[in-house]
Amino acid sequence: MIQIAVMGYGTVGSGVVEVIEKNKEEINKKSGEEIEIRYILDLREFPGDPYEDKIVHDVEQILGDPGIKIICETMGGLRPAYDFTKRALLAGKSVCTSNKELVATHGPELIRIAHENKCNYLFEASVGGGIPIIRPLNYSLTAERVDAITGILNGTTNYILSKMEKEGAGFEETLREAQEKGYAERNPEADVEGYDACRKIAILSSLMCGKNVKYQDIYTEGISGITQTDFVYAHACGRTIKLLAQSREEDGRLFAMVAPFMINKSHPLYMVNGVFNAVCVHGNMLGDSMYYGRGAGKLPTASAVVSDVVDCARHIGKVIMCFWDAQEAALTGIEKASRRFFVRVAQEQESKALQAFEQVSVIKAHVPGEFAFITERMPEEEFNDRARRTGIISRIRIEESM
Amino acid sequence: MIQIAVMGYGTVGSGVVEVIEKNKEEINKKSGEEIEIRYILDLREFPGDPYEDKIVHDVEQILGDPGIKIICETMGGLRPAYDFTKRALLAGKSVCTSNKELVATHGPELIRIAHENKCNYLFEASVGGGIPIIRPLNYSLTAERVDAITGILNGTTNYILSKMEKEGAGFEETLREAQEKGYAERNPEADVEGYDACRKIAILSSLMCGKNVKYQDIYTEGISGITQTDFVYAHACGRTIKLLAQSREEDGRLFAMVAPFMINKSHPLYMVNGVFNAVCVHGNMLGDSMYYGRGAGKLPTASAVVSDVVDCARHIGKVIMCFWDAQEAALTGIEKASRRFFVRVAQEQESKALQAFEQVSVIKAHVPGEFAFITERMPEEEFNDRARRTGIISRIRIEESM
Repeated sequence: MIQIAVMGYGTVGSGVVEVIEKNKEEINKKSGEEIEIRYILDLREFPGDPYEDKIVHDVEQILGDPGIKIICETMGGLRPAYDFTKRALLAGKSVCTSNKELVATHGPELIRIAHENKCNYLFEASVGGGIPIIRPLNYSLTAERVDAITGILNGTTNYILSKMEKEGAGFEETLREAQEKGYAERNPEADVEGYDACRKIAILSSLMCGKNVKYQDIYTEGISGITQTDFVYAHACGRTIKLLAQSREEDGRLFAMVAPFMINKSHPLYMVNGVFNAVCVHGNMLGDSMYYGRGAGKLPTASAVVSDVVDCARHIGKVIMCFWDAQEAALTGIEKASRRFFVRVAQEQESKALQAFEQVSVIKAHVPGEFAFITERMPEEEFNDRARRTGIISRIRIEESM
Repeated sequence: MIQIAVMGYGTVGSGVVEVIEKNKEEINKKSGEEIEIRYILDLREFPGDPYEDKIVHDVEQILGDPGIKIICETMGGLRPAYDFTKRALLAGKSVCTSNKELVATHGPELIRIAHENKCNYLFEASVGGGIPIIRPLNYSLTAERVDAITGILNGTTNYILSKMEKEGAGFEETLREAQEKGYAERNPEADVEGYDACRKIAILSSLMCGKNVKYQDIYTEGISGITQTDFVYAHACGRTIKLLAQSREEDGRLFAMVAPFMINKSHPLYMVNGVFNAVCVHGNMLGDSMYYGRGAGKLPTASAVVSDVVDCARHIGKVIMCFWDAQEAALTGIEKASRRFFVRVAQEQESKALQAFEQVSVIKAHVPGEFAFITERMPEEEFNDRARRTGIISRIRIEESM
């Protein structure tokens, strides 16, 4: 029997308990031993909860119990999760987490401490909820040189953009509706401005290159500037708009960013709608592969945490391979990255724009007083220069089909 | 250093050599040791080949060399692959294979022999080419009770159906063109009649239920009966036609089949076109997840074989978990499975059909002399009975969106 503790009895934590209860048979079979929840750490009381007798308020009870081999950290946030995790790992207890902020901020240090103490720090649930993506990157694509990862990594923004596209509604009203339905937080900044996706792509980028990609270094642009008119144009040119998180190695330079992109119908991410997430991975032998599913939610996220528990249970006393060095990866500024751009200019700027951008594909969408087009491929700094000379209303980057 | 042998220097075998050569650095890092190709078994000579000096013609040289720890079996077919594999495993050498026929036929026996001899029989490349699907099922979805797997598992038929849909061409001419382009074999039966997909879903079904699903027991229907007119109707009702391989547990009964299905635009498999493959997996906690990519081809398939080599290299002397018992899974005949059906009848049968099927959704597609509709959900045996009473031109099963 392997005794575990759950730290944080909120949405994900209670999901972990539920998954272990409901799929006991499968989980014990795959673990090779019975998994028993011994403690649940939370500041609150849960009178009447079937696990009431497992609730503890003092982390020392967990950290001091040599019988506890695996801990699920489902508290979220940096403090006190960071200290608790570090102390657990130093005590040789494996930690399985859904805490993307902690992983993105202290991942390499915590992995190193785990390995030094013959235990593991696993974080499948930190990216893409229940979609298996960390393990496929670490264990499956081992014969590949992965050179690009592009994902829809935030369900809230994808829900809003899908809804704006489908119903012709504006950003503000769609956000309000998403908030009412519980798909967006009351304070939606972390999702809407791309910060959540940024932490997730920082984690995936780090695993891609084996070095540490700091999320603070990743260019991040949210969706609050996207309007219904943008969708009118997107539709007119057979495209849609998605918030993409991307990491790409090109000629030895590493780019990472989060921003809204226009993609066309043949892109695998085109059909990823609503609260679904997906991650496209490009390898030099396999080409493109994609991993798709529910990127959030209590049970999907909890399922990923528990799959880490099973992995830890099968590797008690052994280190599970994970290459994520503390050495910082050198990101190249996205102004050096080349791509095409969708551009809107005021009608009276048409000739000036055509002069500045030379070759363009005009989009006919009959928006009064405007003129819109897609540029040729060019470095972002060159685009910015030409856009400044022209004076534009807005621009959205184009992500080419794979 | 870990010495390996490649048995069969054809398309996949030479791909394995190429992947190991090109991604040496990544592969050695992830293996934890240098991987060296010591022997390549083939009956032919390869004068001038850079690996000419590794070529051997006698399997005994490989089986008798205690230095060989891992063997890639890329010969295909049952004989002599079965005997070679068995002897290798009995000698404690792990075997990584792309041979779906062998895995589907002798999987549980070979896995058991491997485990008894503290080595492994891995087969990631046998399903979905380079798409990671075996490992996600075995190592990632460990907290799930997987109750359905639905895949597009054959690139040739998917290429033909995509082309028929896009270009309005007939089956015969599209098949001929696919043969000319090398996307279909000269003898296309194994692909076109669904036999290839059948072996693959047998493997996935076995992993889903942990028992042995015999491919001979799986109802298999190919695409040679699909006509351009079927696509006219599919288009008229917002659907397309795909050859799906499916395994589903429903109320304790296990169904498995391969057949053309109509699916609509919101189904994740709708956008899987051309030679791409994809597998949807439904778990009771995660809901649906999907794995997408190139299902065939030299390098993608070889990449999957080499990912197995890396896994074996990290587990020398240790057994990698795989639950696939020799005990036979009891399949329920598909006549008990319920679904909706697309049906074509001659115009003069219209009233008879409406009487027999009662509630139907008529499809307006203006095909002269015909009348077509989609039935309500009913068991296949009930459908067959009503269809017999009516006299129909043809039917295609409907796969509902997830």
